[in-house]
Amino acid sequence: MVCTGKHLVLELWGCKEEVLNSEVFVKGMLQKAVEVSRATLVELKTHKFNPQGLSAVALLNESYMSVHSWPELGYAAIDIYTCAPHVRPESVVLVVKEYLKPEKMHVLDFHRGDTV
Amino acid sequence: MVCTGKHLVLELWGCKEEVLNSEVFVKGMLQKAVEVSRATLVELKTHKFNPQGLSAVALLNESYMSVHSWPELGYAAIDIYTCAPHVRPESVVLVVKEYLKPEKMHVLDFHRGDTV
Repeated sequence: MVCTGKHLVLELWGCKEEVLNSEVFVKGMLQKAVEVSRATLVELKTHKFNPQGLSAVALLNESYMSVHSWPELGYAAIDIYTCAPHVRPESVVLVVKEYLKPEKMHVLDFHRGDTV
Repeated sequence: MVCTGKHLVLELWGCKEEVLNSEVFVKGMLQKAVEVSRATLVELKTHKFNPQGLSAVALLNESYMSVHSWPELGYAAIDIYTCAPHVRPESVVLVVKEYLKPEKMHVLDFHRGDTV
């Protein structure tokens, strides 16, 4: 074993366009997610695309969380990757559901880095 | 279908410590990867951890590429997520192999965003 990483891949459909297009909202969600998961934020970076869509990446002491949204489609792709036992990535799923209220969500959960 | 995204999850073991700990080197690799894959770079952000390890995220017009390294373990976790038909994420795998020369590499390839 080299390190025990956990990667959650979230796919969300049926989210509201204005929510997925708001940097302030998505930043707020990530800040809450970092807090709830007990991770430590290094930097939160966002980029707004023209005419719509955004990318947000939270660099953590324990890896990262990222959001990429296509507001016109109501779709968001979210990744939560942590490599520290004190972090609770599963708690982020609840924060995401609460903030984005998707009509449909799919979560893929896999381990990384745990074999040589 | 909402959009056709492709996500490559790369796990690398047996990389040289000094290479995985070099921001300049990893940045250079990501710049090359962006060029070869025909993606468009929005911003390249790196963070060096103390005493070792780094995170690098390339925000793209077509999503992102990220590198998280544990130099002391010779391990790196790399993600390439693109959502545009003109981008060739597979070409990044060759760039990564050429730069990091892992003793062992595992590639997981999956689609995202293509069902409603």
